[in-house]
Amino acid sequence: MTLSYAIIGTGALGGYYGGRLAKSGNNVHFLLHSDYEYVKANGLKVNSVTGDFVINPINAYKSTSEMPKCDVVLVCMKTTQNHLLKDMLPPILHDNSVIILLQNGLCLEEELAVQFPNHTIMGAMAFICSSKTGKGEISHFDYGRINAGVFQHDKEEIVLQIKNDFDKAEVPFDIAPDLALARWKKLVWNIPYNGLTVALNTTTDKIMKSAAARQLVIDMMNEVVDAANACNVKLERSFVDEMLTLTDNMTPYSPSMKLDFDNRRKMEIRAIYSNPIDKAKRHGYHMKKVEMLQQQLFFIEENIIFC
Amino acid sequence: MTLSYAIIGTGALGGYYGGRLAKSGNNVHFLLHSDYEYVKANGLKVNSVTGDFVINPINAYKSTSEMPKCDVVLVCMKTTQNHLLKDMLPPILHDNSVIILLQNGLCLEEELAVQFPNHTIMGAMAFICSSKTGKGEISHFDYGRINAGVFQHDKEEIVLQIKNDFDKAEVPFDIAPDLALARWKKLVWNIPYNGLTVALNTTTDKIMKSAAARQLVIDMMNEVVDAANACNVKLERSFVDEMLTLTDNMTPYSPSMKLDFDNRRKMEIRAIYSNPIDKAKRHGYHMKKVEMLQQQLFFIEENIIFC
Repeated sequence: MTLSYAIIGTGALGGYYGGRLAKSGNNVHFLLHSDYEYVKANGLKVNSVTGDFVINPINAYKSTSEMPKCDVVLVCMKTTQNHLLKDMLPPILHDNSVIILLQNGLCLEEELAVQFPNHTIMGAMAFICSSKTGKGEISHFDYGRINAGVFQHDKEEIVLQIKNDFDKAEVPFDIAPDLALARWKKLVWNIPYNGLTVALNTTTDKIMKSAAARQLVIDMMNEVVDAANACNVKLERSFVDEMLTLTDNMTPYSPSMKLDFDNRRKMEIRAIYSNPIDKAKRHGYHMKKVEMLQQQLFFIEENIIFC
Repeated sequence: MTLSYAIIGTGALGGYYGGRLAKSGNNVHFLLHSDYEYVKANGLKVNSVTGDFVINPINAYKSTSEMPKCDVVLVCMKTTQNHLLKDMLPPILHDNSVIILLQNGLCLEEELAVQFPNHTIMGAMAFICSSKTGKGEISHFDYGRINAGVFQHDKEEIVLQIKNDFDKAEVPFDIAPDLALARWKKLVWNIPYNGLTVALNTTTDKIMKSAAARQLVIDMMNEVVDAANACNVKLERSFVDEMLTLTDNMTPYSPSMKLDFDNRRKMEIRAIYSNPIDKAKRHGYHMKKVEMLQQQLFFIEENIIFC
């Protein structure tokens, strides 16, 4: 079985993972926006720690209406654009297409399922340091693993084929048996560090070196763990220590929200903060410090000027 | 009865109130630090919305060891310096001296009473916009009322005389029957606005215009009201609405902590945040959002360079 792939959003994630899939011989179609003309003419350049490569010629498109129907649709846009998916996706979907949301946050699959109740929907998280560093140019600095899980209408054979395609493309691809657990686990890290690096205008290492800020991270991680459990997702308190140790051993790092903020792009406040806060509240738990960070981020976003 | 006054700290508060008392004919002794030589030679200049004046000649001192014993000791330093009081005050105290802490925060009188268990101690709050705008120069922009209450060893006659001296000096001076209530009421305003204008690097009007930040202010004010009640201080929830209306009608304002931050001075985090948080915790109530702001302020303070 050979799968065709649509990459919706050719940025730090879509450019890297789509590039890897194309490089290893898969049939990959890239949706581009501002870089379309440049990439059509010059190809997509990926500067990776494991070796640079260029995809040229490339199947590049300006609109999904020009794209073929694909077996796998990998959504790599920011969640701030997800309201566009209901119009963008239909032209590239056939009945058996699998939609994968490679995004951070919570309730994204639930929201998409309202529009696409009959399609297989997966959620996926990228553990990677990469960014768009120029026109048609993606730079990959570290890591790269994907953790994915099925939200609705599992198709085991296709999911396994997707995993094989990624693995062959030098992208470790894990299938999580419990997507909700995987999403909450990622939030344990994302919720404190994404917002606090913006609100305190700093990096992860400076946070970890401050006794006060480190304790705030711990408080927020504990709130996320408690929220997960309130939502019937079994997550151990010890996972907080794992995340602290992981961060202590990381090189100083600006999370994706800090990069968005620094580059005057919309921040993913709703997906990473509002949705988990609201879901936990519906289950009777109030993440107060997480909610305060959300309130501060909304204020900060209202008071900056966007691209 | 004529009272002698010692002004401990001749800054935005001490310079203004001490200046007013001296102008109306009281016997006032000013402790100065960096401006001592200049003020000794040129006097103390007060630029007030109600008319400018200069105190020259002036009773100026570099150290309390050179000052006479005074009937009233008005402490106008920042609370970050309060650890110095146990050595600074004894030379100017006689047995019947009244010590007034004209400062923001909580538990200040309790801390001082450990060192001076037999003296009359009062707490006072200034409702004023003033700042030190030059060498020996204080500018008074608006308001000016003082609200004071007795913490221990009430001396009714002297307290009334102090009130009369201030009133004659054109400083409205109210005597609060319940100092703890007055302190907590001031905290309802001080806790959200002092810290948030620093953490969000903004002014009160911008906070009030943002739905998210305004709600955060309300959440924090409610926490302070709940904390007061946990500490057996009866404070109504409706006081929150009063403070919001007051702030909506204020001109854009930078609270004292924001001025300290902007001028790279130590912030009064312990007096305004840690002490109320800890006191409430001892009474079984956890101000979570207030605590988070405290954690952020400690981080911010650790990462700025001071004068």
